[in-house]
Amino acid sequence: MNYGFFHEKNREYVITRPDTPAPWANYLGSPEYGAIISNNGGGFSFVKSGANGRISRYQFNQDDKPGRYVYLRDEDDNDYWSASWQPVGKPLGAGFDQYQSQCCHGTAYTTIKAQYKGISSELLYYVPLNKTHEVWHLKVKNTDDKPRNISAYGYVEFTNESNYEQDLINLQYTLFITKTYFKDNKILQVINENCEKDDTGSNNRERFFGLAGAKVSSYNGDKSSFIGSYRDYSNPIAVERGRCDNVLNYNSNSCGALHTTMSLQAGEEKELTFLLGRKNDKESAEIINQYNDLSRVETELSELKKYWHEKLDNFQVNTPDENFNAMVNTWNAYQCFITFIWSRAASFIYCGLRNGYGYRDTVQDIQGIIHLDPAMAKDKIIFMLSAQVDNGGGLPLVKFDHNAGQEDTPDDPSYVQATGHPAYRADDALWLFPTIYKYISETGDKSFLDELIPFANKDEGTVYEHLKRAINFSMERLGAHKMPAGLHADWNDCLRLGKKGESTFVALQLYYAMSVIREIAEGKKDKEYIDYIDKVQAELKDSINDNCFEGDRFIRGFKEDGQVIGSKKDPEASMWLNPQSWAIISGLANKEQSEVILES
Amino acid sequence: MNYGFFHEKNREYVITRPDTPAPWANYLGSPEYGAIISNNGGGFSFVKSGANGRISRYQFNQDDKPGRYVYLRDEDDNDYWSASWQPVGKPLGAGFDQYQSQCCHGTAYTTIKAQYKGISSELLYYVPLNKTHEVWHLKVKNTDDKPRNISAYGYVEFTNESNYEQDLINLQYTLFITKTYFKDNKILQVINENCEKDDTGSNNRERFFGLAGAKVSSYNGDKSSFIGSYRDYSNPIAVERGRCDNVLNYNSNSCGALHTTMSLQAGEEKELTFLLGRKNDKESAEIINQYNDLSRVETELSELKKYWHEKLDNFQVNTPDENFNAMVNTWNAYQCFITFIWSRAASFIYCGLRNGYGYRDTVQDIQGIIHLDPAMAKDKIIFMLSAQVDNGGGLPLVKFDHNAGQEDTPDDPSYVQATGHPAYRADDALWLFPTIYKYISETGDKSFLDELIPFANKDEGTVYEHLKRAINFSMERLGAHKMPAGLHADWNDCLRLGKKGESTFVALQLYYAMSVIREIAEGKKDKEYIDYIDKVQAELKDSINDNCFEGDRFIRGFKEDGQVIGSKKDPEASMWLNPQSWAIISGLANKEQSEVILES
Repeated sequence: MNYGFFHEKNREYVITRPDTPAPWANYLGSPEYGAIISNNGGGFSFVKSGANGRISRYQFNQDDKPGRYVYLRDEDDNDYWSASWQPVGKPLGAGFDQYQSQCCHGTAYTTIKAQYKGISSELLYYVPLNKTHEVWHLKVKNTDDKPRNISAYGYVEFTNESNYEQDLINLQYTLFITKTYFKDNKILQVINENCEKDDTGSNNRERFFGLAGAKVSSYNGDKSSFIGSYRDYSNPIAVERGRCDNVLNYNSNSCGALHTTMSLQAGEEKELTFLLGRKNDKESAEIINQYNDLSRVETELSELKKYWHEKLDNFQVNTPDENFNAMVNTWNAYQCFITFIWSRAASFIYCGLRNGYGYRDTVQDIQGIIHLDPAMAKDKIIFMLSAQVDNGGGLPLVKFDHNAGQEDTPDDPSYVQATGHPAYRADDALWLFPTIYKYISETGDKSFLDELIPFANKDEGTVYEHLKRAINFSMERLGAHKMPAGLHADWNDCLRLGKKGESTFVALQLYYAMSVIREIAEGKKDKEYIDYIDKVQAELKDSINDNCFEGDRFIRGFKEDGQVIGSKKDPEASMWLNPQSWAIISGLANKEQSEVILES
Repeated sequence: MNYGFFHEKNREYVITRPDTPAPWANYLGSPEYGAIISNNGGGFSFVKSGANGRISRYQFNQDDKPGRYVYLRDEDDNDYWSASWQPVGKPLGAGFDQYQSQCCHGTAYTTIKAQYKGISSELLYYVPLNKTHEVWHLKVKNTDDKPRNISAYGYVEFTNESNYEQDLINLQYTLFITKTYFKDNKILQVINENCEKDDTGSNNRERFFGLAGAKVSSYNGDKSSFIGSYRDYSNPIAVERGRCDNVLNYNSNSCGALHTTMSLQAGEEKELTFLLGRKNDKESAEIINQYNDLSRVETELSELKKYWHEKLDNFQVNTPDENFNAMVNTWNAYQCFITFIWSRAASFIYCGLRNGYGYRDTVQDIQGIIHLDPAMAKDKIIFMLSAQVDNGGGLPLVKFDHNAGQEDTPDDPSYVQATGHPAYRADDALWLFPTIYKYISETGDKSFLDELIPFANKDEGTVYEHLKRAINFSMERLGAHKMPAGLHADWNDCLRLGKKGESTFVALQLYYAMSVIREIAEGKKDKEYIDYIDKVQAELKDSINDNCFEGDRFIRGFKEDGQVIGSKKDPEASMWLNPQSWAIISGLANKEQSEVILES
C-alpha cells in the first residue's frame, strides 16, 4: 500500500490517502507552545509542559481523536464533512461525491487539502516562529459551476485543567472549575475564575479559540451541546442541525466551537483563520486582530520555512538515490532538531509527565544537530554540564527550571521526592565524551574546554574538569571485577543489574571516555593525568577482556549476585548488541575480536 | 421526558428507553470483584481495587464506552445490532425494523431486554454471591414466523495492566506486556507472562473471557483486529464482516471477542453464557464448565435476590405514596448498602485511586445500614475504632490492608508518603459519636462500650476509652476562641481555615459528642468525667454563642488570620447551612435561636 511520498523541493512529506495504518504526526512550535498533529487533524496542544500545560484534549491509545477540527457543511443539501478526512470520514474516492485529500507535513507546519462535491478546502496549521499561539488557516473554494452556500465550524476541545492527569482522572474537581464566554469573535475559557487574579482581572489560566477574517454566526462553549447525546466527533448535533445553539458551559466540559457561513460564486475562494492559545481576554483579542490582515499568514509561513530550511541547508548530500538524499538532507535532520528541541516533552504515546530533561537522552540528542547548528548545540552542552553533580555524576532528571549550582541531588531525599528518581545511573555523564568530542571536532572550538561552568549542586570547574570528574565518578564506583557498577540503571532501564552489578556496556563507554580525555590531556600537556589514564585504561581493558570476552562475543554484564547476563551458554538472550558494538566503537576490541564478534 | 419507573414488586428500576441523559448505573458484586454497569452495557470491572485491580477498560468523562458488549447479527441480511442499545445504536421505535429495549437494574444484577427485526434478546449481568467472576447470560428468541440464523459476539476490552493509570498513561510499557491465547472456548490474556510464575505455571495475573453453552465459531484476542481501522465500537469490522479473523495479540491492545452462531426456528429460544474474570487457565476452565449446566444461572440469580431482599426486608414502611415506599424500602436502603460495602472503591466518575477508606466517609456510611444489618455495622465500627490513633484522632485514610496496632500515623513521614495525607482532620473521630450512639440505640448492645479494641498505632482501650480520647483530641487542639482548630480540613475539604483556624461546625460536632459521652458516662456512673464534661461543655457553649452567633445565624468559622467566614456582613457566602443545622442537631441552639436561624 502506498500512502505518500517525499516532496524534497518543498521539504514536505505528502500523504496522498488519509487512511494510514496509524496516525502520522508532525510537531508544530516548540515546548514553549507545542502542538502535535496527525494527518487527520488529531492531536493536542500544550504550553511549556505536555503534562502540566495541556490546553486541548487527546485520547491516547484510542482512535487519534479529538483534534483540531474544521467541519464543512453544504447549506443547500445539509450534507457535511471535515476539512481533514476524519472525524466525519466520508467515503474515499475520486468521484464528485467521494472524498479526496492530501496532507503535507512540512517543516513545522502541516496542510490538509481536500475535495468533496465541488468544494475544495485547504487547511494550514502552524505555530508562528517564537510565538505561543497556533493558527489554523482555512481556504474554501467553490470548484462547482454554480453558487454554493457553505458553513465552516471550527472545533477544539479544551482540557478542564492544565494538568493532564487532573483533567483525566480528578473529575469530581475538574468538572466544576471551568466556564466559557463568547465575546468579540472568540470563545474564552476560564479556569478557577476567581482565584489568583492579577490587577487586570485575569488569572492567566484563560484559553481562547477565535476567528479572524469572518463573522461568527453561532457558537458553543459547552462540549455536550455541540456534540449531542449518543453522538461523537463524526456527527456533532450542531453541524447536523446547521448551527450551534450558543450554549456556553459553566462546569462540566467546555469546548471552543465557532460557526461561520459563506456564499461562494462558481470559482470563488474565501479565507479565514482560527486561532488557539492560552491567553487572556486582552491578549487574545490582540492576536485575533492581527490576523484580520490576511497577508500575515503568508508572512509567518515564509518566516517559518526560511528558518527551518536555512538550518537544514547547513548540511546537504547529493547521491544518486533521491530518497536517500531526502532522508539525510531533510527528514533525519529535521527529526534530530525536533528531538533536540522537544526532548521527551510530548508525543502521541507519551503524555509528557516527566517534568524535565533526561540526562543521557539529552546529551545524546545534542549529537544529532551539532553539524547543523553548533551554537545551539553548545548552549545545550553547557546546560547539561551545569546539571552534572560535583561528584561527576549526571542528575538523572534535569528539571525544566534547573537552577545550576543550587540543585539537590539524588543523595537528597528532596530530589528523589521531586523527580521520582531514586539514584544515579551508571552511564549518564559518560555520554558527555562523544558529544563534546564531536562538538570540538566539528567547530575546532578547543577553548571551550577552558570555559568555567557550575556544577549542579555547588562549585564550578572548566569543561576539562567536568570531564575528569565524570571519569572519577565511574572509577569510584567499580564492582567486583573492577568494572563500573550497574547503579540504578546502565542505559537499558529495564535491565536491572543491581547497584553492585557490573555493566560491560558502561565499562566500554568508560574505556572510550578515557581515550577521549587522554587526547584532551595531551593537548593540555597534563602529563600526570595522562599517566593516570594510561594506567587505569590498561587495567580496565584487562578486566573487560578477562571477564567479559567469551571468544566470540562480549557478555552484557554481571548481576549483583554474580549471574552472568548475555553468555553464549544462555538458552535465551545469549547475544546482546551493545557490548559488541561498543567494543568496536570504544576501540577496545582488536581486529580479530572485532571480526569474530561481528560474525557471531 | 419519562425514562422509566420503579417496579417495587421485583425491587427493580425499569428503564424503558435507553437514550437516558447520562449513563444510569448499577453496582454488581463487591470490591472483592466489582463491576459497574450502565443501562447501555457501559462500564468496567476490577478485583479488590478500582485503581489497582482494573481488568476491563472504561473511558471516563466520555460517552459511556466501552463496556460488556454483545453484538447480534442476522446471517441472512448481514444487519447487526447490540443486545444493549449502544454501542451500535439502531434507530429507536416500535416498528419491526426499529429497536426497542428495556433495562432493569435490580439488587446486584442488571437485565437488558431488546427487540429488533423479529429477534428478541435478554441479557442478564451479575456477579454470583461471594464469587469473583462475572456472568453475562444471553437468551435469544426468534419471534419471527420463519427460521432465522443469528450470530452473537461477546466483547470485552481488557486493560493491559491492572493499574488503571499504567494502562492509560505508560503506553511505552503497557503496550508491550500482554498476549492472548484461545483455548477451550475462551480467550486467556496473560500479562508479564514470564514473570513470577508459581508452580502451576501461572503468575495469577491472567484474565479470561469464556463462553459456556455454545461453541465458539471465531474469536479475537487483538482489539484492533476486532474493531478495525477508522472504526469504533459501533461498527466493528469483525461483526460487519460476519466473523472474527482469529487474530490474537502479542503486545499492543488485547481484548476478548467470542463469536458463536445459532439457527432458530420460529418461536425458538437459545441460551448461552459469557464469563469474565481474573483467573488463570485452570481456574477459568473450571468456571466455564460449571455454566454448561444452564440451571446454574437461575440458581445463582435466586441466591442473589434472596440475599439482598432479606436484608432490605429488615426495615419496611408502608405509606400511601408508592414511590416513597419504593425509595425507602428498596432504593435508599440498597444505596446505603452499596455505599457501605463499596465505600469510594470506584464509580463512573471516580477511578478508585484512593487506596483505602476515608475515616469520616466510612464512619458516616455505617449509619445508613445499622438498622438493616447491625452485625455488619458493628464489624465496621470496630474496624474504624481500630483506625483511631492513640491520641484520639482518626487516620485520614485507613489502608485497605490496615494493620491495627501497627500503623504509622500522620505524625510519621512514612504515612504521609504512603497515603498522600499530610495531617489530621478536625472532624474525623467525632463522627464516631452519632454512629456508635445509633448502633447502641438500635441494638441495646451497651456491653459494646466495654469491648477492648486496639488503637491504630499502639495500645488498646475500651470503646468508652476510644470515645474519651476522641473528645480529648479536640480539646487538645483548641484555637484562639477556645473552639476546635481547623487542622487540615473540617469536613469541607475545600474550606481551608488553616491549622489554627476554628470551625463552628466542628465545635458543634464536639458539643454533640459531649452530650453523647455524658449520657454514656452517666450509665457508667463516671462522676469525675461527668463533672469534667459539664464544665467544658458549658465553656464550649459560651464560646460558640459569644463568638459565632450573629443574632440570626451562626458563622461558619474563623480563618487562621482571624477572618470570619459566613458572616451576614459578607457580600457572598454570608449564610452557611452546616453551622445552622448542627446548632440544632447538637442541641446547642435554644428554641429562639433555632427558630431564627431556620427563618434566616
